[in-house]
Amino acid sequence: MKIELRPIGYVHSELKDPSDCPIQPSFSEHVGEIEVLDEYVEGLRDLDGFSHITLVFYFDRVKSFDLLTYPYLDDKKRGVFATRTPRRPNPVGLSVLQILNIEGNRIKVKGIDILDNTPVLDIKPFVPGFVESYDQVKISWLSDKIRIAAYSRKTQSRE
Amino acid sequence: MKIELRPIGYVHSELKDPSDCPIQPSFSEHVGEIEVLDEYVEGLRDLDGFSHITLVFYFDRVKSFDLLTYPYLDDKKRGVFATRTPRRPNPVGLSVLQILNIEGNRIKVKGIDILDNTPVLDIKPFVPGFVESYDQVKISWLSDKIRIAAYSRKTQSRE
Repeated sequence: MKIELRPIGYVHSELKDPSDCPIQPSFSEHVGEIEVLDEYVEGLRDLDGFSHITLVFYFDRVKSFDLLTYPYLDDKKRGVFATRTPRRPNPVGLSVLQILNIEGNRIKVKGIDILDNTPVLDIKPFVPGFVESYDQVKISWLSDKIRIAAYSRKTQSRE
Repeated sequence: MKIELRPIGYVHSELKDPSDCPIQPSFSEHVGEIEVLDEYVEGLRDLDGFSHITLVFYFDRVKSFDLLTYPYLDDKKRGVFATRTPRRPNPVGLSVLQILNIEGNRIKVKGIDILDNTPVLDIKPFVPGFVESYDQVKISWLSDKIRIAAYSRKTQSRE
């Protein structure tokens, strides 16, 4: 079974190279734009009432994957589905981004962790109310790593 | 530009028909299973340390979409990208599901809002720490509707 999708738009961002990319949106202050193709612009109506979107996009520069992989924050190989690496069997990415404004076919967003010219597959309103209590979420080995990364970012920004 | 993806597995659920489906996972108590194809099973390693996954799946029974659409909880047409309707330009769905257990190639999950035999595109660990403060999230016209739906569900379950 093959599944065919097509871009509804493209990301415009300052990130030209994978090494420029922050790990995840909450570590990113980058502002960028989502350009929506003309034929889909009407579908943006009412989106301006939301503060955040979940962007679904295609890692178009990924050409292969491994089932076991070193995550960015780790020195131990993990199963690919226990990581958020772009190198996945289906290289689809998700980012929650803050909407700054919407004008015509362009959504200006904050929190961009996505390479310039990345094809966009879908835009969904981000609705935390649909998710169960966040207090009960366990994130395994990642919790320590996130604390370390967040701390190091704060420390750097003070310098 | 065409983007080709392929299923890494399938959803097994009691939901056989779109009319059986709850609106979103937090309204669902349904237990179901994600069956991962043999060739990808190794990629599940370490996932058992997480409490929740974000499942990325393909609405395979969707054949068309409208740019303006009536959301389930609304009586006014909205832009498709301001809703979570399955009938989207790229019919890709996201659900945050609670992991109950993982055995071999099967992940038993709670919160299923997905039709039986739906193709799975990706499994990601759900990591709320990567998202900015939830207190600041605005969800427009949806906030009232969610309260009403949650209230009506509670009322019904008491009867």
